Amino acid sequence: KGDGAESAGIVTSDGESSQTFKVHKGMGLINHVFNADSLKKLYPSNLGIGHTRYSTSGISELQNCQPFVVETLHGKIAVAHNGELTNAIRLRRKLMRHGVGLSTSSDSELITQLLAFTPPLENDDTADWVARIKNLMKETPTSYSLLIMHKDIIYAVRDPYGNRPLCIGRLIPVGDMNGKGKDNTETEGWVVSSESCSFLSIGAEYYREVLPGEIVKISRHDVQTLDVVQRSEGDPSAFCIFEYVYFARPDSIFEGQMVYSVRRRCGQQLAIEAPVEADLVSTVPESATPAALGYAQKCGLPYVEVLCKNRYVGRTFIQPNMRLRQLGVAKKFGVLSDNFKGKRVVIIDDSIVRGNTISPIIKLLRESGAKEVHIRVASPPIRFPCYMGINIPTKEELIANRPEFYDLANYIGADSVVYLSVEGLVSSVQESIKERQKNNSTAQKSPGKIGHCTACLTGNYPVELEW
Amino acid sequence: KGDGAESAGIVTSDGESSQTFKVHKGMGLINHVFNADSLKKLYPSNLGIGHTRYSTSGISELQNCQPFVVETLHGKIAVAHNGELTNAIRLRRKLMRHGVGLSTSSDSELITQLLAFTPPLENDDTADWVARIKNLMKETPTSYSLLIMHKDIIYAVRDPYGNRPLCIGRLIPVGDMNGKGKDNTETEGWVVSSESCSFLSIGAEYYREVLPGEIVKISRHDVQTLDVVQRSEGDPSAFCIFEYVYFARPDSIFEGQMVYSVRRRCGQQLAIEAPVEADLVSTVPESATPAALGYAQKCGLPYVEVLCKNRYVGRTFIQPNMRLRQLGVAKKFGVLSDNFKGKRVVIIDDSIVRGNTISPIIKLLRESGAKEVHIRVASPPIRFPCYMGINIPTKEELIANRPEFYDLANYIGADSVVYLSVEGLVSSVQESIKERQKNNSTAQKSPGKIGHCTACLTGNYPVELEW
Amino acid sequence: KGDGAESAGIVTSDGESSQTFKVHKGMGLINHVFNADSLKKLYPSNLGIGHTRYSTSGISELQNCQPFVVETLHGKIAVAHNGELTNAIRLRRKLMRHGVGLSTSSDSELITQLLAFTPPLENDDTADWVARIKNLMKETPTSYSLLIMHKDIIYAVRDPYGNRPLCIGRLIPVGDMNGKGKDNTETEGWVVSSESCSFLSIGAEYYREVLPGEIVKISRHDVQTLDVVQRSEGDPSAFCIFEYVYFARPDSIFEGQMVYSVRRRCGQQLAIEAPVEADLVSTVPESATPAALGYAQKCGLPYVEVLCKNRYVGRTFIQPNMRLRQLGVAKKFGVLSDNFKGKRVVIIDDSIVRGNTISPIIKLLRESGAKEVHIRVASPPIRFPCYMGINIPTKEELIANRPEFYDLANYIGADSVVYLSVEGLVSSVQESIKERQKNNSTAQKSPGKIGHCTACLTGNYPVELEW
Amino acid sequence: KGDGAESAGIVTSDGESSQTFKVHKGMGLINHVFNADSLKKLYPSNLGIGHTRYSTSGISELQNCQPFVVETLHGKIAVAHNGELTNAIRLRRKLMRHGVGLSTSSDSELITQLLAFTPPLENDDTADWVARIKNLMKETPTSYSLLIMHKDIIYAVRDPYGNRPLCIGRLIPVGDMNGKGKDNTETEGWVVSSESCSFLSIGAEYYREVLPGEIVKISRHDVQTLDVVQRSEGDPSAFCIFEYVYFARPDSIFEGQMVYSVRRRCGQQLAIEAPVEADLVSTVPESATPAALGYAQKCGLPYVEVLCKNRYVGRTFIQPNMRLRQLGVAKKFGVLSDNFKGKRVVIIDDSIVRGNTISPIIKLLRESGAKEVHIRVASPPIRFPCYMGINIPTKEELIANRPEFYDLANYIGADSVVYLSVEGLVSSVQESIKERQKNNSTAQKSPGKIGHCTACLTGNYPVELEW
Repeated sequence: KGDGAESAGIVTSDGESSQTFKVHKGMGLINHVFNADSLKKLYPSNLGIGHTRYSTSGISELQNCQPFVVETLHGKIAVAHNGELTNAIRLRRKLMRHGVGLSTSSDSELITQLLAFTPPLENDDTADWVARIKNLMKETPTSYSLLIMHKDIIYAVRDPYGNRPLCIGRLIPVGDMNGKGKDNTETEGWVVSSESCSFLSIGAEYYREVLPGEIVKISRHDVQTLDVVQRSEGDPSAFCIFEYVYFARPDSIFEGQMVYSVRRRCGQQLAIEAPVEADLVSTVPESATPAALGYAQKCGLPYVEVLCKNRYVGRTFIQPNMRLRQLGVAKKFGVLSDNFKGKRVVIIDDSIVRGNTISPIIKLLRESGAKEVHIRVASPPIRFPCYMGINIPTKEELIANRPEFYDLANYIGADSVVYLSVEGLVSSVQESIKERQKNNSTAQKSPGKIGHCTACLTGNYPVELEW
Repeated sequence: KGDGAESAGIVTSDGESSQTFKVHKGMGLINHVFNADSLKKLYPSNLGIGHTRYSTSGISELQNCQPFVVETLHGKIAVAHNGELTNAIRLRRKLMRHGVGLSTSSDSELITQLLAFTPPLENDDTADWVARIKNLMKETPTSYSLLIMHKDIIYAVRDPYGNRPLCIGRLIPVGDMNGKGKDNTETEGWVVSSESCSFLSIGAEYYREVLPGEIVKISRHDVQTLDVVQRSEGDPSAFCIFEYVYFARPDSIFEGQMVYSVRRRCGQQLAIEAPVEADLVSTVPESATPAALGYAQKCGLPYVEVLCKNRYVGRTFIQPNMRLRQLGVAKKFGVLSDNFKGKRVVIIDDSIVRGNTISPIIKLLRESGAKEVHIRVASPPIRFPCYMGINIPTKEELIANRPEFYDLANYIGADSVVYLSVEGLVSSVQESIKERQKNNSTAQKSPGKIGHCTACLTGNYPVELEW
Repeated sequence: KGDGAESAGIVTSDGESSQTFKVHKGMGLINHVFNADSLKKLYPSNLGIGHTRYSTSGISELQNCQPFVVETLHGKIAVAHNGELTNAIRLRRKLMRHGVGLSTSSDSELITQLLAFTPPLENDDTADWVARIKNLMKETPTSYSLLIMHKDIIYAVRDPYGNRPLCIGRLIPVGDMNGKGKDNTETEGWVVSSESCSFLSIGAEYYREVLPGEIVKISRHDVQTLDVVQRSEGDPSAFCIFEYVYFARPDSIFEGQMVYSVRRRCGQQLAIEAPVEADLVSTVPESATPAALGYAQKCGLPYVEVLCKNRYVGRTFIQPNMRLRQLGVAKKFGVLSDNFKGKRVVIIDDSIVRGNTISPIIKLLRESGAKEVHIRVASPPIRFPCYMGINIPTKEELIANRPEFYDLANYIGADSVVYLSVEGLVSSVQESIKERQKNNSTAQKSPGKIGHCTACLTGNYPVELEW
Repeated sequence: KGDGAESAGIVTSDGESSQTFKVHKGMGLINHVFNADSLKKLYPSNLGIGHTRYSTSGISELQNCQPFVVETLHGKIAVAHNGELTNAIRLRRKLMRHGVGLSTSSDSELITQLLAFTPPLENDDTADWVARIKNLMKETPTSYSLLIMHKDIIYAVRDPYGNRPLCIGRLIPVGDMNGKGKDNTETEGWVVSSESCSFLSIGAEYYREVLPGEIVKISRHDVQTLDVVQRSEGDPSAFCIFEYVYFARPDSIFEGQMVYSVRRRCGQQLAIEAPVEADLVSTVPESATPAALGYAQKCGLPYVEVLCKNRYVGRTFIQPNMRLRQLGVAKKFGVLSDNFKGKRVVIIDDSIVRGNTISPIIKLLRESGAKEVHIRVASPPIRFPCYMGINIPTKEELIANRPEFYDLANYIGADSVVYLSVEGLVSSVQESIKERQKNNSTAQKSPGKIGHCTACLTGNYPVELEW
């Protein structure tokens, strides 16, 4: 359980010819895939695109080794893709019917071959890549955030529903980083990423999101909107609400708000929906801390730490007898029993997917002296599969679809357990977005009606699914 | 900096003959030294001792590969040692003068050979190991916590000054762990460790500390005090105060109190000694969190998170140009800027050793919108070397010994910086110990006057140093 | 020099559906690519194809990671390819003109997509793979040996010129291997390989070669010739003569003869062409031993060992100073000086490519007491590049194209040096083939006129090269 | 079977102070233990000693990690040891009785502590290491070859029986290696090794053997005999005869003769003792080739290769079914069947220890067409354990002690099998030594009567064994 199969890849271009694309891809953690040598091979370059996949604990996104590079009559193109096409099967058959063999099951190859294929090509001396991208977007509504590199240009594309995130950062000139002031308006270059939080660590600052349906052309000194493809009339946008709840790093910015702030609001909302008479509020370190602090503040209860992380866990292979096999949780956490002995404890968790993690923690707290243990979950229960790129456990594995769910507190050993409502989650997410819209903010504005994909919670998918 | 050279070792005995001691030692992280195969070779066994060394960030303890095993006329003995003998050089010369070659520079070999050597041996058919241990303790006052294994007995020994920690845990019968009640008084066995926090993860519970000077004999069903060797008259005990401040895990128990509680009291004391007009209290995740929560509570200021850890840091080898080399801190942390933009921030740190970590963090917070940044350090400045087993940077590296220290706030870019006083630290540590003593507690009582080793802060060493 | 970049791959099928093809590929030595786990994943299966590439010292074949698998409208096909298409560039453009993007520069992808592409496909419910293979063979004359797997069939194909080897082995039933007699006519299954020598090690026996142009269909119990595609009229076959000279293992069988026997005949022929007055014949261990034994026998001189291999050479990284850097050869071989002190030595080498290996050996022999050192090379000099799959050094690197070649004996420090003539090589190779043809052998007969590709020696390529 | 546990170590000195000894030791192949970094740490240095252990197939020498270094009152000494003390147990008890704990079971620690211990030491300001070495040699007669390093001197010592080899090489000045002539009498330095064959690969030439009982002092420019300790009166020397038969590399020189020449003479002697009517003589590659060439020449039969080595054997983990498990030998060798089909074959092997290797080879040759297979073994059967450093299989494992031995030809499937006689082996080894002695050679002369240790063949040990 944990850091399973992963992959990473980078493709760079010297900005002059796509024939000199340099590619390095591999399975495994990014630190294993790339080392000083493999990175050196990618230089010098003026632009490049990359891709990493890692499985977060419990719920992981689909895996495929990217970017995908093909040579076409008009040079090489490289494509990195985040998401999952809802009509992939139909599009695969279409390509194969034209005699194109597909070497992987990945959508990134499918998208790349669809871009290469668009007819008529016989006398098309200079391929119109933007036309090809628009053609692709007409063929498939969601879900994809794409980086497409060709020679000296990168196209950043987000599907019309905006299901997967994509944002642009601006490299800060070195002088500015040294604190010599920010009047310098010169731009060192541009970076594009699914998560804005990555910008800081490479010396860039958040610039703006790619809007749903937008095709952005990025060259060294310029970021330019080429087109914004509309979704079906009346459809609201459908950014994945689970990015806020679970996947994104707390310092990421989506739709103009920091994920951390959304999570704290979820905690506050949860305090309104499901208060409890208790002595202290705490959390399982460390992803639910913002929600716990929000809950504690709203309730007026003290926020206290009850567990500390055991840094030297290792691969827990040291299991030569039955005794040790029972100690799973105790190997991961230390118990700060003096902080809660004889107290009534509220534990805020960010989500309960299968229910097999929280149960031994509750037992551990009780054995260490907690008088009561109440569980509050800062998101609604997951009940439905995702077909847009998130690898959710099977329906049978989801605790919310199992009979135990009807007596959940008893099943996990808690004094009570309450989830945040879907409405509570949606309002926590949309509150400040709507406020900013009302304030007639001059900030960038997503086109059309704002909505969020809550399919895994409600079964309402943003587009009709095709098989 | 980071996870440098480490070593680990385990020696087990079948409890019948020391000739069958099984040894596995190696350099590297414990997970690399031990795998399923090497562990299997150590079984079956009735008792064993082990040792690991890891360098904690910045300050690390001295390294030596243990346990040390030698064959003597009376069978094998294995010795694991934590600490550093203050008169090691004299003792080494003494042994060598008798013709014993020493194969390492480690105190553990020295101690083992001293135990083996004690004359007269010619007609000593059954070696009196306890007499040998007492003889050793007469020859060297501090600092050592020892586990000595011979055949079917383990001796746990702590030097008369109690400088290094050592405590005993009791294995909980499997039935009890399953929640079938704790009336069962049967004991599954005993474990001894420097840090009590390790007990939970192996299914044991804290039983008691080995007292300063105590020689404890441990067999499968019995823990028995054989003797308590006294220190020089009038000398107080001298447990390392830096275990509380820095080394120990927060859930460890020393002298009857949880480290976490001491750290929170240090934060509270710091709030009394050095209050500041500010909007919020925070910390650099995550070792100073208890002090920060204590400070915030005492001041009545909100505790807020300003940084989040970047889990996928890696070995930061990705440094092909100057730009990236400037980004050290930004690679380790994400900035939760919405939480503190325009606010006056107090950052609680657990210690400032060299001063080169806090400086870029302050800069990062300011660039992200902090109006003021005040630093409060929950321990006094380190100024002196440790000769009792802690690897402290050289005097020249310690920020407190450098000219910059006289204008430290300016040097690190803070609006103000204040350290906890030595008196404040000592009272935070001793407060509840004294209270318990006053209450005539029936709990185990350390013999003689209570004191703590503050040598690295004050230069007052518990015993005279020999060269 | 040495064991450079390598790759290996296996694809297996359960023989029922191509959708369940199991693939494992990777860069590196086969032992690194495959382990017990990855092999287990490939089972159970009824048939499979694999591919390995390793660089032999000095001259290595082109590298590409195989087998290549694509999904088509009619199921998956997997293709393993040995060789290099002489008109690959034209075929690539043709495919790209139809909108197929090519993700690698390898011929195996090109061949796979060409097989997938063949129109008309719209209403072609059950693809006629044999027609597609024949179509492919019409498009490209050489050089390729192919294994094509689809569902429950493997097609083994050799190009009409027979440039690359391919042969079929028959798995011996386990009972037979135990020596219980060979009357049992049951067949356990079939294996196909470039080199027959691999059969023995997997419990198979040599069955027959795939003939030039032949398409063989292999299923569990049956080996069936589907067609034999003819080459351009009048063209002789063109099996790579360098397989005999250098690449193949001595126990491999090509065209009905063991490679070892051909090499010994080359040595005998060399003795006729270039005799020398000397005391003994020897070789550089160990690839030229058959030629040396042939030469010695023909001359009537004793065969004596002069060098022994140093088994513990390692990666010769131990080179901290100039002294050691001069010792290259001396690290690889020990000198059996007593065997040749004061004697005139003839050294038989299998080929001299760059000339930088033999020179220090000659010096070593002289310094160890050889009176004369004569070099005889059991193959003609390489002068031209190969475009059919063999990675030969650039023209500039080949000793035969450099000015030193005109005074080669002096340049390498030999008393004399003579190469085998091209005619001598060809007759050594063809002698027994022709004899068998004359004897009206009932064994399988290659269609058309027998010839061999000597392009690297003569510049005469078997087909016109396209760019 | 295979390359089991191994170890390697190097200790270097700057030639000024033993305090600066640099040590690098480790388990594993020398290429894993040492890399560029670990070697760099050993420089700069003026002298050093090293040690490696590797297990040769079937029979391997005892393992212990060396050199052993201890600090004494007079500085550090480092000791590398080859051999096994026949009275180790008594010497261990003696040391332990004086209170010295022994941390390993190795003789090298024992020897090192014995050197350190020698009393009286109290007022011995400058230790007389030569006196200590002579004292050691009086205490233990055999078997040991030692390198003892102290500050700027290395002592090379061979036990009075000369059981283990030890020889001195002279580093050739770089100029000489470049062929500028050998008039230069300057010496670059000295090297000492168990096997002379290693000299060539580091740019040194054979200088002379250390004589039985000799203590040689080696400094940068000087090799000086300090003393020659005599063995018990009348005892002949006892160099291990198995070094000639099995362990040593063929290009090594012992007692003035090349191992290769001895092995060829063994083959010739075997031809006299056990001729056979056959068509050809061959061998299992490659250690018995000299004996096979000797046998063939003496018999007048052609020497022919029947097997070739399979270079890509790998760890033979590919054993997913019963079929493949039967193929052991076929994975290691290719069969050159054309060379012996229908012929009567004599296979020369260097020794048959357990009998489980030759049996499947014979079967393989028969199945590939050999008409008869006769085995001739170029050494006598091993029947007794070695207590002088060679790790011989247990008595029960040795084929010569098992009932099958009485019908060995039948057991291994050969038409006949004959071993070389002990007398034949001894005369093959001593023939040229005695001839040189007769010729009143001016070369170095071993003191006393010449003999060889044949204990493993005859049970006659050179000294009485102590327990």
